[in-house]
This record gives sequence, structure tokens and C-alpha cells, in this order.
Amino acid sequence: MAKQQRNTGKSSRKTSSASSTRKTKKKTSRTKMVYAFDGKKTEGGSAMRGLLGGKGANLAEMNAVGLPVPPGFTITTQTCAAYQRSGGALPAGLMDAVRGGIRRLERDRKRTFGGDSKPLLVSVRSGAAVSMPGMMDTILNVGLSDAAVEALANEAGNRRFAFDAYRRLINMFGNVVMGVDHEHFEVEFDRIKAALRVKLDTDVPAEGLEKLCKAYKAVYKKHVGKPFPQDPYVQLEAGIRAVFESWNSERANTYRRINRITDLEGTAVNVQSMVFGNMGDESATGVAFTRDPSTGVNEFYGEFLVNAQGEDVVAGIRTPHPIIEMKKWNKEVYQELIDIRAQLETHYRDMQDIEFTIENGRLYILQTRSGKRTGAAAVKIACDLVREKMLTEPEALLSVPAGDLTQLLVPSFNAKSKKGATVLARGLPASPGAAVGKLAFSADEAVERALQGEKVILVRKETSPEDVEGMHSAVGILTSTGGMTSHAAVVARGWGKCCIVGAGALQISAAKRQVKVNGKTLGPDTVISIDGSAGEVMLGALSAPPPVMTPDFTRIMKWSDKQRTLKVRANADAPKDALRAREFGAEGIGLCRTEHMFFEGDRIIAMRRMIMAESREDREAALAELLPYQRKDFVGIFTAMKGLPVTVRLLDPPLHEFLPHDEAAQKEMAKAIGVSLDEVHHRVSMLHESNPMLGHRGCRLSVSYPEILVMQVRAIVEAAIECAKKRIKTIPEIMIPLVSVASELEMLRRLTEQTIEIVKKERKYKGTLSILIGTMIETPRAAVTADSIAENADFFSFGTNDLTQMAYGFSRDDISGFLPTYLQTGILRVDPFESLDAHGVGALVRTAIGHGRSTRKNIKLGVCGEHGGDPDSISFFHNAGLDYVSCSPFRVPVARLAAAQAALRATSCKRKNANSKNASTRNNKKR
Amino acid sequence: MAKQQRNTGKSSRKTSSASSTRKTKKKTSRTKMVYAFDGKKTEGGSAMRGLLGGKGANLAEMNAVGLPVPPGFTITTQTCAAYQRSGGALPAGLMDAVRGGIRRLERDRKRTFGGDSKPLLVSVRSGAAVSMPGMMDTILNVGLSDAAVEALANEAGNRRFAFDAYRRLINMFGNVVMGVDHEHFEVEFDRIKAALRVKLDTDVPAEGLEKLCKAYKAVYKKHVGKPFPQDPYVQLEAGIRAVFESWNSERANTYRRINRITDLEGTAVNVQSMVFGNMGDESATGVAFTRDPSTGVNEFYGEFLVNAQGEDVVAGIRTPHPIIEMKKWNKEVYQELIDIRAQLETHYRDMQDIEFTIENGRLYILQTRSGKRTGAAAVKIACDLVREKMLTEPEALLSVPAGDLTQLLVPSFNAKSKKGATVLARGLPASPGAAVGKLAFSADEAVERALQGEKVILVRKETSPEDVEGMHSAVGILTSTGGMTSHAAVVARGWGKCCIVGAGALQISAAKRQVKVNGKTLGPDTVISIDGSAGEVMLGALSAPPPVMTPDFTRIMKWSDKQRTLKVRANADAPKDALRAREFGAEGIGLCRTEHMFFEGDRIIAMRRMIMAESREDREAALAELLPYQRKDFVGIFTAMKGLPVTVRLLDPPLHEFLPHDEAAQKEMAKAIGVSLDEVHHRVSMLHESNPMLGHRGCRLSVSYPEILVMQVRAIVEAAIECAKKRIKTIPEIMIPLVSVASELEMLRRLTEQTIEIVKKERKYKGTLSILIGTMIETPRAAVTADSIAENADFFSFGTNDLTQMAYGFSRDDISGFLPTYLQTGILRVDPFESLDAHGVGALVRTAIGHGRSTRKNIKLGVCGEHGGDPDSISFFHNAGLDYVSCSPFRVPVARLAAAQAALRATSCKRKNANSKNASTRNNKKR
Repeated sequence: MAKQQRNTGKSSRKTSSASSTRKTKKKTSRTKMVYAFDGKKTEGGSAMRGLLGGKGANLAEMNAVGLPVPPGFTITTQTCAAYQRSGGALPAGLMDAVRGGIRRLERDRKRTFGGDSKPLLVSVRSGAAVSMPGMMDTILNVGLSDAAVEALANEAGNRRFAFDAYRRLINMFGNVVMGVDHEHFEVEFDRIKAALRVKLDTDVPAEGLEKLCKAYKAVYKKHVGKPFPQDPYVQLEAGIRAVFESWNSERANTYRRINRITDLEGTAVNVQSMVFGNMGDESATGVAFTRDPSTGVNEFYGEFLVNAQGEDVVAGIRTPHPIIEMKKWNKEVYQELIDIRAQLETHYRDMQDIEFTIENGRLYILQTRSGKRTGAAAVKIACDLVREKMLTEPEALLSVPAGDLTQLLVPSFNAKSKKGATVLARGLPASPGAAVGKLAFSADEAVERALQGEKVILVRKETSPEDVEGMHSAVGILTSTGGMTSHAAVVARGWGKCCIVGAGALQISAAKRQVKVNGKTLGPDTVISIDGSAGEVMLGALSAPPPVMTPDFTRIMKWSDKQRTLKVRANADAPKDALRAREFGAEGIGLCRTEHMFFEGDRIIAMRRMIMAESREDREAALAELLPYQRKDFVGIFTAMKGLPVTVRLLDPPLHEFLPHDEAAQKEMAKAIGVSLDEVHHRVSMLHESNPMLGHRGCRLSVSYPEILVMQVRAIVEAAIECAKKRIKTIPEIMIPLVSVASELEMLRRLTEQTIEIVKKERKYKGTLSILIGTMIETPRAAVTADSIAENADFFSFGTNDLTQMAYGFSRDDISGFLPTYLQTGILRVDPFESLDAHGVGALVRTAIGHGRSTRKNIKLGVCGEHGGDPDSISFFHNAGLDYVSCSPFRVPVARLAAAQAALRATSCKRKNANSKNASTRNNKKR
Repeated sequence: MAKQQRNTGKSSRKTSSASSTRKTKKKTSRTKMVYAFDGKKTEGGSAMRGLLGGKGANLAEMNAVGLPVPPGFTITTQTCAAYQRSGGALPAGLMDAVRGGIRRLERDRKRTFGGDSKPLLVSVRSGAAVSMPGMMDTILNVGLSDAAVEALANEAGNRRFAFDAYRRLINMFGNVVMGVDHEHFEVEFDRIKAALRVKLDTDVPAEGLEKLCKAYKAVYKKHVGKPFPQDPYVQLEAGIRAVFESWNSERANTYRRINRITDLEGTAVNVQSMVFGNMGDESATGVAFTRDPSTGVNEFYGEFLVNAQGEDVVAGIRTPHPIIEMKKWNKEVYQELIDIRAQLETHYRDMQDIEFTIENGRLYILQTRSGKRTGAAAVKIACDLVREKMLTEPEALLSVPAGDLTQLLVPSFNAKSKKGATVLARGLPASPGAAVGKLAFSADEAVERALQGEKVILVRKETSPEDVEGMHSAVGILTSTGGMTSHAAVVARGWGKCCIVGAGALQISAAKRQVKVNGKTLGPDTVISIDGSAGEVMLGALSAPPPVMTPDFTRIMKWSDKQRTLKVRANADAPKDALRAREFGAEGIGLCRTEHMFFEGDRIIAMRRMIMAESREDREAALAELLPYQRKDFVGIFTAMKGLPVTVRLLDPPLHEFLPHDEAAQKEMAKAIGVSLDEVHHRVSMLHESNPMLGHRGCRLSVSYPEILVMQVRAIVEAAIECAKKRIKTIPEIMIPLVSVASELEMLRRLTEQTIEIVKKERKYKGTLSILIGTMIETPRAAVTADSIAENADFFSFGTNDLTQMAYGFSRDDISGFLPTYLQTGILRVDPFESLDAHGVGALVRTAIGHGRSTRKNIKLGVCGEHGGDPDSISFFHNAGLDYVSCSPFRVPVARLAAAQAALRATSCKRKNANSKNASTRNNKKR
């Protein structure tokens, strides 16, 4: 996602430079099929994506900028379309144009295509305007033949290199173009390796590869029925045809259908001359970043290997040298690279990641792209580029992937420490950060050992609200089941505590206090390290320096606040979290869950007594015990938020979540509140539900037991009055959850208002007390009947977690049963619990917004689901017209930046639309 | 609901008779506040509901028709509105008009209001255009005073009667008008009863009541501060004010707000003279039906009691006489009643239920209304009225409550048999009918004992798909939990098998094979009778004659088919059910669930083997075993349906439903398929879900395991080909369940099409095979993205059960935790699983219809949820434009009639709209 944003940003920046190119070419482009990019000429540009495909347009752009790209040419997508229309005939004149293109390359490279001295070799690649699976793989080394391979060997002084290139061509051409099964070639290679008694391909000497080429040609002849073509143009034409054919492969067709890609007519074909970094000691290959991708420091950063090809660097057989050492090897080339580094940053106005090859002393840039970087680097680079006057503030904001900001807020293992670590298991990176500790197998154990000063990581199959205290005591949380929005994940993110969920390889036995994983057994004294950003569980104690908030980070936040219109609140349930949320810049609490408040210490006993009560009187007595706790919590939160709004959600989860589920705890509970174990069993069984998610919870609890609502509202109002007496301003907002019928809210709003009045009278409070009363929109029915619901709601807060669950019919606790398959088959492109489904769930949100405003023009609109901290979803919420998003405290900076980015993108869209409107107005006037 | 339909039908019929009345009155009605109905004059009529309220309009209508209604007058709703506007002042002239009204009554009844001989007494009642709770209760006997009570006693020759009337007035007036707590009066009554040593009110003699009146007056004075008013006009004015005030009671206001009643301005007040059936031996009281309400036979049917009031009949202290005996008591009155009977039927064109009183030889009709009747009576009366030329066929159809038709199709206990029965418990009437049998505590037990010829009723906490065979063997099903759409309910209704669910009083112990209920213990040999229409569980064997389908029933069905446009299909999973569905007139199968097919005999073993399989190959092997069974089932169903469409739904429930959940059965299973018990445990635990309703089921199964879909489609196609070879026409429709993302359907449709082609090729089938491929719309997301989904759907079938679950977030299995409270508080007016929620879920249905047709104009649209058999919902589906509904076979006749009624009502609406349009066009032309 983040990548997409940046591409969008970039391509709009590129437009200006390339549009001039386009204009000059447009006149001749009607039947022009081949666009050159070489040392003399660039016929394309980045704006010609539609005609030249993504790859072709980029190659042209790089060449136009003056980068030493290996020369080549691109056959247009229109040519492919013509081929399809004609039912598979190459358009007249195409091969003439291709021959013309090859001749230019021969002149440029001073080589002959498939010649018997200094042969020119080319690669053939597909490249549509949108990348899609199912398109043809690359064919390298086109132009090699029995004669040319000898010439190449002589030139390089390296037969092994030449025959290796030849066997690759025969294999790729046979497989990709002629459809010979890869297997048939593999068999021959294995046979030769066996004969030579070597294991690795790289151990086969030149003679072996010569033999292999012969064997491959035999395989080719056997399966194709004709010998491997020695004419380079025959190879080239067949390659071009194969690219055209791959446009209609089943996979490509399916992909276009599923992704509704209907405006593309075909793929382009890129023919580019091959360059080799392993031609001898004057050749080399390497990769570099224009700045340090892990810190962002403005230093050239890279590695190179002499007489090698890219594969060698990747394979790790030889150790590459730092780029600075190139100075000694070839000063001119080094200087050229340094110049290109500056040129690239000036042109792309971003840190670049480049691949280069030096063939016989001549430098070629194979690829340049925006470089991947850490969150810290992204922030530093963005600010540096503004200081260097390369970017404006808004552009700088758009260059930082919002989601990466969390990396700056939590500790992370340093890379060195991680390098040698044993990864025991992988899970979902539920809450970022790094934690090191011993294993605790139950919430109680975690609490006790933490009190004794131990650092423990709580390891559970899954967590439930009963475990909250233990989760809080632990330095990290690790579960073997559950998804990104499971209980453990949501709670941990709220606290900014490192958490991994769904690490399925762990076989946890709480009874035996041990975990078995991949043959290892871990016990209560085993120390592990968990990386919540990567989802990795590692053995032993790794080192993790604490995060440092840099001035640049503060700068990015300040710029963001200038741009955004969406307010950002935090979800926080305790004064400590509220304080942290403020530090991160939250402008209020958008979701204060009250259920977590009932688990601490004695409170849970009163809560359980309330649940066990048989009469309203007994319930009220138990609730009266809870009241002082609740009031104290609210005083704390209101005080922390100093006059910023605090949205308090009334009790939401089903009551069974407050009862213990194992026999021992049930016995203890029975004793604590003075009932029989049978009664506890009975109540647990009564409260059991087939689908608790759709059960007796949310506002349904307050309808059944209005006294619960009354106690909670009383606590809120009493807390507000207490604060007022201390001259602390409060803006409480009371939120009624899970409404699906307007009359639920109507009834509960009335009860809330009555309670507010009663408490004010009791306390003889005469001051103003502005308390908004609103609801969550989290059932589809609430969304489609939001006009009725708005009659009694001062605000809507979208609960997009539940709305997503109910719209899809996906239980987030059970989705792991099929989500992996859904993502793999492309039925879903992203987990809808991570990023809001704009099409379906988004339609419900938009309907509710329209309905809500039709009833109550100024209704306050926000979102408090997990999506409130996801940049893509924030963009949707901005465009849909919400007033605020609310998210975990640690996501607040992410949300601030994402909101700014959404505003900037929306403005630029509007400006574009306005421009095109003006343009069309002008055009109309001309007519 | 049924009642509503009929009222609607009736009021439209009444319009003509009353509209003439309205026209003549309209000129003077501008400030007219009082409308008389008495022996000389009727100023209102049934069309004046808005002005006179429902009660006032009806009284006027009865009087206009010439019925001897106790004379009275109505104060208009506008008068009440004026009272409200003025802040509580009686409009000028009101009391003068009221005095005028009273004078007319005095003349008519030859009595004096509150006079000391032959006093005229009146009742004061509220009566708005829509009945609503919170409005004032009736005050009877207004006009009685210390003097008048003596006169009344003399006239009746019965002091007890007179003082009883007086104490009632003081109590009601004190309580209702002056707000004195009822309690204060009760205390006095108890004191007197204690002094007299009697228990019942009716045992207190005249002198006691005289004392009581004195005591009541003292209570009144103490709490009101003034003595009880002796002036009849003071009483009357206070009564009228109290009615006006009650319009603004909190309950009434709430009711209007919740029910969005915004067009009413106030209530009317009805002042009507009192008549007494206990004035002496020339007086009597009684009730009658114009035809036999249980059979529909055209015979006058009723009872009367001499010198009695209505209460005496109800209290059952004296036994009333059959109406025919009245001939002997008072021939003239009897004849008058007989004449009225004919007159009423001619006027109302429906069987009437009347209440009458004879005061000193003069007959008064107190009330007439359409009489409640059994389904059989409704059918017979409707047909008779057509034969008697009182009703047209369409009118006759509208007079039969569609839902009552099921009474004609299943056995029911005869009333005599039920009278003496001990009702052990009550539950929800899940599937109508009557069943008698011994208790079976498990599905296996039911199967075994049924094989030995026993009639058993299966008693379970709840049922699951594992129990299906046992449910089938039992004559009836009884569960202690679950709602109207729980597993037991749905399955039983499908078979037309008697079933009660949610009988919470039963404490079932399957292990001990006993049921405890209200202190009784039932065992395997206890015989019980269950009434699935009433939800009653009774001890012992009651007698239940089998149903008889009468020619009149057939006639109603034939007339229905002429009127309806909506097609009616049935839900059926087996050839036997399909045959029954055809007999009941189904025009196809709208839902053939395939999951039930996997439970019989050996099939479940293969199914479980499939679920236990670790690889695709093993799954395919197990599925291959299931294929012949599936094919055979489909051949059977296709053959039964003889060329009518059959919609087959692919596997829908989560796989865990096919695994046993108790240890013993799991052991057995492990043995049967040759795996370890541990493996079974492991799979059961793997398949466990927190919210199975939103879990891995529906089309998600086919995405994960495409081989399941392939096997099922293969079975369908092979069956169709087999039928084709036997020259049996088939129209299979393949339905893919639980789609929420368009790409799910896209992928599965392609796989389905491929499989169809493969099977056709294998079988060398060259004929045509038209198989539609469609989907259920049962997730909210599918509804709002139906335009995309329609791209791959030949049809939509709305699964309104699941759609309702997900729209509200109500699990139908867990709704019993809060639904009763919701219905009681009026938050819901009806269980949304019984009758479709037109506002919310209906909005999703309409959205999906619009979206679906926008993509595919002729997309076939149906519904196969439980709502397909509910008359109100059918009306919605007709208006929304569906092509068909599908329901349980036993609901097919209901659906046929309901569809006809919906069509008739829609046409009449259109006609009315057209008329009013024409009228307004005419008016416009005049201007």
C-alpha cells in the first residue's frame, strides 16, 4: 500500500518531464510500432505507460534523463492489440521495424546481433501498463548460437561464462517459447552433475557446460521436432510472438477479469541489449542506495563485485566490497556513479535503489527505483530533502509510508543481534515492538512473577478478558491462535505492548508449563525474544535499544497537523493510556471501553456478584459496589484529557466473558461470592451462546438490565461533576454500543438523560454539563436505517470491526480457517479487518453517513474500529467525510500523517479535476 | 397480522356506506364538537375515524346501519387538539354541546341524567384513531350519586346491583380521574370482607356494599380533599378532561414516538348511556357468533344469561343457555336478534361476533366485530359467502387469514380432549400439528424404538444435524432450548412434523433418561401429547383426528392461483418431501439442502472420512464414495418434480456439524474409519469455532476444498443425464451459498461450468442441459455489492434468515436471551425471524434487487429463507418484485393464498392511487 502511494506521488511528478517527449512524438505515433531508447535517441517517456507498458516507459524515462541504460527498444501495446485482433498474425512491417531497432543497437554497442565476433545479445521481456501474473517470463541471451557462443567465450576469455549463457538461452527459449517441460532439461543437468560427481550447478566446469548445451539442444530437437534455431532473428521473432501469446494465458485473463482491468488491449515487448559484469576484470556488478536505507543518513551506500553477475552477489558465495572501494578499482567509473547518484536524486527527488553493471569498463544502470527504507530513514530523508529544497513539505509528507512510523515509537531488536538468532516460530505481527523475557503460562503466573521483578512473556493459546491483568504484567504476549483483531492483538496494540498472535507452530501445554516447538521444549525459565513488528519468536535474549523520538519526527507531525482536516483521537481505557495518547497528539478519546475496568482486583468479584444476581435489587447492590471504581476511573481519564472529549462506551461484551471458565477458578469464585458451585455452573451454562458475537451483548445488556446503564451513566456524571468542582473541564460523550433498532437507542437515550438529571439534582449541580449521547454504527441494519437512529444520536462512531464481521459474515476469531486461501487465490486482496473494504463495508458506511446527516445535519461522525489506525482506511474515512478517526495510542502518529496524506491527495485530485474541467471548458469554447 | 388484513379489507368495504353520511355532515363540521348516535340521528360513520376515533366511528356506523346501539355521542379529536393547544382549557361551547347531547340521551332513554328516579347513567371512554396504550381507562356509571343510587335500586328491585355500580364509579373516578391510588380502595374492601367473613367480592351482600360506598367516599375525600361530586355534570366534565389529559401521558407519548405516529392531534371521547342486563328478569346479557366459529357452518351460535351482566358470563359462576332457548324466554327479542344477525352479515359481509344486553325487554347491541374462527371455518365461510353472493372471489380470498391454513393440513387435538389435559410446560409452536408418544432421549434411541413399532417423541435440549435420522423416526420433536428458526424447528417444519422448541421448564437428563418438569419426573415410558400449534406439552394420550382436505380448501387454492403472480416453490431435501410439495401445489424446489443427505446410514462414514482426510487425494477418494448416494438422491428428486425447476444448494454448514461431539460416538467413529481417537479429537478441536455462524462454511468450503463442489456438481449433472435418458425432463439450478465477495462466485461458477462440461464429455451427452448457476444473497455485503455479484449469477435466492442474523447481529440460536424483553418493551413489534423486517433487512433486499437487475436485467429472483412461508413477508416480496418464494411444503398453501392476497392488495392500492390521481386531475381541470 505504502508503495502504491509513493508510486502515485512519483508518477505525477514525472509527468512534467515526460510530457514534452510525448508531444513531440505524438504526430508520428499513429502506426509507429517500435520506440527506441539508446545512446542517441529516446522516443518514449514515463507518461507513455499505456502505449509502452510500465517497464518500457521507465526504461525510456531513465534513458531520457541521461542514465547509461543498456540500449534497447519497446514494441507498443497497440502492436500486441493488432496481433490479437488479427488472430495471431504479426502486423505488417513489425519485423522490419524490429530489424531497424536491432541495427541501432549494433551501432550503439559496436556489436553484431548473433555475430561470430563480438556478438550482440538481447533480452526479451513482456511489460503491460499494469503488472499481472501469467505473463511471459524473460528470455535472456537471445542471439547466442553455436558460432556466437565461441565468439563470446573468446571475448570474455571465459568459456564457462559463455556456455552457461548459452545453456540458459536454450532452456528458457525451449521452455517459455516452445513449451518444452523444464523437467526434461533438468534431467540432463542432473545426469552431467552425477557424472562429474558435483552437487551445485556452479561446480560444473566449462567442459561440462559445453556438453550440457549439446544435450539441451538434443532435448529441444526431440520435443520441438526441429533443431534449436541458430538464426538470431528467428529466436527474436519467436520470442516476440510468445510475449504476445502470453497476454491471453488463462492466468492473465483471470487476473484481468477478477481485477476488472478492462481498459488494456495488450502488452508491450521490451528488447534490450545484454550487458555482462562477468566479462573479465574490467567488468563488475553491484547495487547501491543513494542514502543509507536504515538510518537515512545522506551517504552513498552500496556494494560491488568484480567480474561477477548479479546472481553471485545474491548467492553470497563471494563477499562484495563496500562501494567506497571502487575508487581504487576504477576511479572514473566510481566518479560516474557518484554523479549519477546526484542526478538520480535530483530527477526522482527521492532516495533511489539502483542496480548497475560495468562491462569492460563501461557503466550501465540496469534499474533505479525508490529505495525501501526503515521508518526512521523515511522520516529523516523526507526532512533532509525539504532542507535540501528538493521537496516541499506536502511532498515530503507523501513520501513517508504512514504505517512505518510505529517503528519509531517502540523498541526494536537491532539487526546485528537478530542475525545470529534462532527463529523458533513465526506468527502474525499483532503489535510492534521487541520484548525479552521468560515464559509465563497463565495470567496469574504472569502477575506473580512480575511482582517478584521477573520479566515474563505471557504464552497462551488465546487470551480472554479474564487474562487482562496478566497481559498487563507481562512484557510481551504470544499466542498460538487468533488473528490481527483477536483479543490479545487488540488489547496489546492499545497498550503499545509487543505481541505476536497465531504462532501456530507452538504446542502450548499450560498444565505442564511447557511449549513444544520444532523439536525444542521450552519451560518457565527459557528466555525468548519476540519481535512484534516481524512476528518472529526467537530463542535467547536479543538486544533492543529503546526508541528515540527525533526532532525530524516532531517536524513530520507538525507538518501533518497543518495539512489534515480529519481529527485524530485515541482508544484508551485507563488514565495512563490516556496520558500517552495525549503525548502522541490525540485530540480526544474516541473509545473508552468500560469492560476492562471490571477485571482489576476486587472489582471482578462485584461484577460476578452482579452477574449471579437473581433479582434487580441484588444486581443493583452489586453495581453499587462497582460505582466508586468506575467513577474513579473516569475522574482519572477526564483529568488526563484536560477538556478534550472522551467517548465512553457502555458495557459491551457478553456477560459470560466475566465468568471464569475453568473448574478451579469457578470454585474460587463460588467461594468468593458465597454461592454454590452448581449455581456458578448453571449461570455459565445459561450464558453460553452458539454465536456470542451475535448474542446478548452491547446495548442488549442495558435493555435487559437497565440498572447497568444507570450505574455507568451515574459514574460518568458524578466524575464530571467532581472534575468540575476541581475546575477541570470535561467533555464526556456517552456511546451506546451495538444498536440495530432505532427504538433501542430511543429507550436507552431517555434512560441516560433521566439518570443525568437525577444525578445533577442529587449533587445539586447547577453548572452546565454538556454530555453528548450517541451510538456506534456497527450492525448493517443500523447503517441502512441510520436516518431513524440519528433521531436520538448526537454522534455516530463507526465500529468497523463488527460492521466488517457482519457485512461479510466473517467471524474475526475464526477467519484463520479460510483467510489464507482467500488471499492466496486472490479472492481477497487484503484482510478486510486490516484495511477497510471500501466497496462493500464502505458502501454501508457511506449510506449511514448520508442517512445520518439527512436527519441531523451536524451529527458528529467518527470511527473507533481498528481501521482507525490504518492509512488506507483513513484515506477512505477522509473522503467519506468523517470528522475524526480513533485508534490505539501508538497508531496516533500514523493516523495524523495518514490523515494529512489523505487531505493532500484529495486536494490534488480536486485540483486535477478542476484543471481538466477548465481544459474541457476551454476546448468547448474553441469549438 | 391476519386480523389487520381483514380490518383493512373491511374498512375499505365500509367506506361506501358511510361516505354519504360524511358528505351531508361536512358543511357543518367546522366547529361541530359533538357527534350524536342515537335512535333518531347518526352524525358520524366509519369513514370518520380521524375525527371520531376508531371507537366513535364504529359506534356511529353500527347506529347508522340501524342496530340498537345504546345511544351516545362522541366528542371529536379536534376538540382534544384544541384543548391541548390552549394548554388545558375546555374549548368554549363544549360543555353546552355536551349538555345538548345528554338531553338527547335523556329523551331517547326516557331517563334523567343523575336523576332521583330512573336515572340515566353513562360511560366515558377515550378512543383515538389508532388504539394506543397509556390512554385513559373507561369510567362506568357516571351520573350515580347518593340519590340516584337509591332510585336505581328501586327501579331494579336490587340494592346490591345499585350499590355495586356506585362503588365501582367512586373507585374508577377516584383512581382514573383524580389519581387516588387503587390500593386505598382495596384496603377498605378487604376490611369489609374480613368483617363479614367472606372471601369473594360477589359474596358481599347489599348492606356490605352500602357500607363500602360510604367508606370509598371517605377515602375519596381524604385523598382528593373534596367530597365525591354529587353533580352528574361535574362528574362528566372531569371525566372528559381526564380523557384529554391522558393523551399526553408518558406511555402514550412514548408509544406514538416509537411507532412514529405523528399525524394524530388528539383522542375522541365517547359518552354512551349505560344499559344493564341485570335490571331484573326482563333483562339479560349474551354473546353470539353469526355462524359456527369452529366449523363455519351457517348456524346462529351463542349463549345468554337472564338477569346478569357480562361479567357473570365470563366468571363462569352461572351456566349460560344456548341462544335457541331464548325463543322460549322472549320470542320477540329472539326474533329481533335473528333479524339483526342477517342484517349484520349483509352489512359487514363477514361472520360477526356480537355482544348484546337486554334491559327491561329492550335489546341493545353493545359490540359487533368480525368473529375469530378456526382455519377450517374461515375457508368454509369464505366459500359460503361467495355462494351466497355476498363476497366476490377476491374478497373471499382476503377474508381468510393465510397463516391459519396450516390448521387444515395437519392433525390437531380435538378441543374436548384438551380440556381436561395437564399442561406440563409451554414452548414455542415451532411446527404445527399433534403428536402422541413415549419419550426417547437420543436420536439412536428414537430410531431403534421406532423400528420396534413404538411411537416416540424425541426430547432433547437442542438438536443438531447428527440427530436428523432420529428426528425423522420420531412422531414429534420437543426441545428445551432454541427459537422458531433453530435446527429442530426448521427441519421439523420442512417435514410437516409436529415440533415444540424452547420449552424451558423441562430439565432434560439424557444420561438418566428422564425429564423433570414442575415437580413431575417423566421417563422413557411416559406418554405425552404435544400440540405444535399451541406449543403445549401435555401428560397422557390426547385424541387427534387426522386432517381432511375439503373441496372448499381446494377452491380457495384454485382462486388463489388465479390471482397471484408470485410463484411458490418448496424447500425439500428428499424425494418424499418433493412429492408432498407437489401435492401442495409447489411449482418447483426453491431450496434443496444437500447436507441432510450426508447423514443417512453409511454416508456419514464417508463424509467423516472426507473431513478427516489430510490430503486432497484422500478427500477425493472419500467424496467418490459419496457420489453415488448424491446422484441417486438427485435422480429421485428430479423424477418427483417432473420437469419443474429444482434449486440445489451446495454444501453449506461448517464441517464440524458432521462430526460427533460426545466421547462414545467419537470412539465409534474413530473405529469406523480407522483413525485414532486422538486424531478425531484433534480434528474436532481444529474445526471448533467461536462463531460458527460466521465461520468456515457455505461457499468458503468450496473455495478451500474445490473437490467438494466438483463432486456435488458431478452428481447433479450425472443425475440430470440419467433422467434425460429416461426421458424425464429436469431443470436443475445450482446455488452457491454464503457469497460475500463477487470473486468467490466468479471462481466457483467457473469451476462449476468446467465440471459440467467434463461430465457431459465423459458421458458423451450431446443433448441440451440447461443448468442455471446462481447464488444466495444472505450476507449484507452481498446485498450492497449485488451488481458485481450478478455478473456471475443467473439467479439470486435471498437467504433472509442469515441476512436477518447478520443485519441485526442477532444469532437466531441465542436470541431467546433477549427477544422476550425486546417484544415486551416494544423495541421490536415482531420476531424478525418470523416476519421479515421490511425497514432494515428489506432495504438490503431492495438494494440487492435493484443492483442485480442493473447488471442483469432478467435475473431470476426468489427467496428461500423461512420468511418465504410468512404471509406478511410474502406481501413484502410481492411488492419488492421477486419472481418466487420458497417455503416448507406445509406452508405452500399458505404461501399461495398469501401471494394472491398480496397481488389483490397491490392492485387495489394501485386502483385507489389511480382514482385519486384521476380525481385530482378532474379537480385541477375544474379550476
